[in-house]
Amino acid sequence: MLKVSILSIGDEICIGQILNSNAQWIAEKCTEIGTEIIFHLTVGDNKFRLIESLKYLEKSSDVIIMTGGLGPTSDDITKSILLEYFGDQLLLNKDAYSDIEEFHRKREREISKLSLSQAEVPSKCQVIRNKLGTAPGMVFYENGRYYISLPGVPYEMKEMMVNFIIPLLINEIEKRHESVVKYKTIHTSGIPESNLAELIGDERKFMKEGESLAYLPSTKGVRLRIGVTGMDFSSCDKRLYEIEKTLISKIANFVLPLGNKELTETVCELLKTKNKTLSVAESCTGGMLGAEITSVSGASEFFIGGEITYSNWAKTIRLNVQEKTLLEFGAVSEQTACEMAENVRKIFNTDFGISITGIAGPTGGTPEKPAGTVWIGLSSREKTYAKKFIFGGNRNINRERAVFTALNELKKVLVE
Amino acid sequence: MLKVSILSIGDEICIGQILNSNAQWIAEKCTEIGTEIIFHLTVGDNKFRLIESLKYLEKSSDVIIMTGGLGPTSDDITKSILLEYFGDQLLLNKDAYSDIEEFHRKREREISKLSLSQAEVPSKCQVIRNKLGTAPGMVFYENGRYYISLPGVPYEMKEMMVNFIIPLLINEIEKRHESVVKYKTIHTSGIPESNLAELIGDERKFMKEGESLAYLPSTKGVRLRIGVTGMDFSSCDKRLYEIEKTLISKIANFVLPLGNKELTETVCELLKTKNKTLSVAESCTGGMLGAEITSVSGASEFFIGGEITYSNWAKTIRLNVQEKTLLEFGAVSEQTACEMAENVRKIFNTDFGISITGIAGPTGGTPEKPAGTVWIGLSSREKTYAKKFIFGGNRNINRERAVFTALNELKKVLVE
Repeated sequence: MLKVSILSIGDEICIGQILNSNAQWIAEKCTEIGTEIIFHLTVGDNKFRLIESLKYLEKSSDVIIMTGGLGPTSDDITKSILLEYFGDQLLLNKDAYSDIEEFHRKREREISKLSLSQAEVPSKCQVIRNKLGTAPGMVFYENGRYYISLPGVPYEMKEMMVNFIIPLLINEIEKRHESVVKYKTIHTSGIPESNLAELIGDERKFMKEGESLAYLPSTKGVRLRIGVTGMDFSSCDKRLYEIEKTLISKIANFVLPLGNKELTETVCELLKTKNKTLSVAESCTGGMLGAEITSVSGASEFFIGGEITYSNWAKTIRLNVQEKTLLEFGAVSEQTACEMAENVRKIFNTDFGISITGIAGPTGGTPEKPAGTVWIGLSSREKTYAKKFIFGGNRNINRERAVFTALNELKKVLVE
Repeated sequence: MLKVSILSIGDEICIGQILNSNAQWIAEKCTEIGTEIIFHLTVGDNKFRLIESLKYLEKSSDVIIMTGGLGPTSDDITKSILLEYFGDQLLLNKDAYSDIEEFHRKREREISKLSLSQAEVPSKCQVIRNKLGTAPGMVFYENGRYYISLPGVPYEMKEMMVNFIIPLLINEIEKRHESVVKYKTIHTSGIPESNLAELIGDERKFMKEGESLAYLPSTKGVRLRIGVTGMDFSSCDKRLYEIEKTLISKIANFVLPLGNKELTETVCELLKTKNKTLSVAESCTGGMLGAEITSVSGASEFFIGGEITYSNWAKTIRLNVQEKTLLEFGAVSEQTACEMAENVRKIFNTDFGISITGIAGPTGGTPEKPAGTVWIGLSSREKTYAKKFIFGGNRNINRERAVFTALNELKKVLVE
């Protein structure tokens, strides 16, 4: 298998100021294409230790993917150290230069000298153009080994990984005839990890030595990751398909219907193909459900709009929730959730209306309605109902759970 | 300074299945007490590579903190490898034994042989009792160096760190008369990294050898992190204060006014203390601004609600934007942004109304209004205005930038 190590460069990661989510993301992507991850190493902005790290990682890795330290300021040292490491010199790269000019022109900003210095790159490296920022990526190939340097800004790094590095690595695996490990992910929603595990039972009954099944829970739902090894992807694919079929036979009701699409994309795709429209009424989530839906490009085809009614006053004035309902049952109740969902659907003249009203926490709970209590309402042209959910004590986890639980309710109606 | 490295052991981190939040937490805690973090290294459940990792880290570290691989199953290899590494033998530890018995008794569970095997520990190590689980922690002291092995379960690891390891390290720093490092962060908003760097100029003019200044950009703004070393925390504090004063004199307009609070919290705090209320009108962000504001607990004190008007129809019906305005200037225009902000403020009867209308992309752009064009409107009881911003090509980054740029506009008005 192609051996990959990840080297994260930056004091902010080293001292624990930020989570190293880049390393996790890169490891996940490289694992998906069948490479073996050897080490993740994090080092501060320190010349001596960065060189030491490169020397250590090259002993066991075919590919070293570096992130960070490519900014224009003096604490960014990666480029100058790679220059020294490979005995190279800087050259102005015209593509990078025009990319930086274009970047500033589009934003109607002045170009600083510092920014332009980013267009100078070591002569031996292949340049990866940066479509989202100013620091170009660099690929060195020395002694049969790849040294890849990417920006630390996550979206710039991800764009280069997806469009440049991943294809390069897939090509390398094929060229070297390396054995591969391949994974397949099944997306589920609406069922906790332990219940899913009970339905699936002991996986050793249908999986062989060297094959793996992992449960990956998140607020969106539980993903199942199947892993198999083989000499090529097509033999892996065959085996993955067999295991997937067995798994789906056990948990069919909870598997999302559109293959590798996650919950939000699935709901959006279903709305689009069924030609249905949607509006939302949000209290404790404050707009998060609308934001999640509109994170999908093309949402304007089915999403008309919504009401953020954070106060009771807004619920009555903007959503026509009856004052009587609020007084008698409270804002966090079946009755309020139903009125919100039905009224928003009628106001926006959509096929579906979803409402969320709850106590996100950590404060605001009572013995009868503890923090984490959320009512989710769903109204269609045929019927309106609401369901109660009790989540945990963490405000933002509760809000995320409410959003994805609401989307799961809509998914259920859409696949009926 | 006392040199600490962190070694995370486990396939699930190595392949990117989970985020390495343990390493970040340990680094943060060790930085707080003034140690220097040298490396974070992650390795899978692999004997050869784990030994290689220990040999690498001990070259540069006084303390190696390991997490993970202490469970009772066959893929947990840390204890047996440390046994071999130090040429040691297992001994039954009575404290660990009774802790495991107690753990199972409380939960009315049978004790398995596997669980009891966790009470056997290397004879040379000091045992850290596990109050929350079954695997004891271990501290080896060899050749003037600490090798610390902790469980991978976050709450078990944290309990041992807080009550045992941190006091041990503080004691070691004092015993060795080691110097310490201390950091301070300044939050800025509304200015890109390179422009900030130009205003600040060459930091070597006001900072000494061994002091550091780092730029940490995100969609929320750029944070500046100052680091200084000294013989004790109070001399560090004094020096940090001096450098902070110099920096603030150069970039005062962009520094957030409430010390260590980020932009969203700052705006919420300012609204609260000034007793002002807010409503929002969102198009391309689809509720993201409302969601960001209500991520702060207590937002109900100043946030009344908002309109998600994703379609033009919703803009006219729900926000009374004139059809003429939309026809003549388009939905993404100064005029529409102003009407949205002013009307939402009046409808919700709030002190401030903010609007966001733009082309999030990647599709929907035109030569005059490329994807990434966003108008942000702000209306107070005194005046209404809107500003144009041109962001990049990434849909969700554009939406985040729009949200934080809108919050920055409100911040400016609130500190006026």
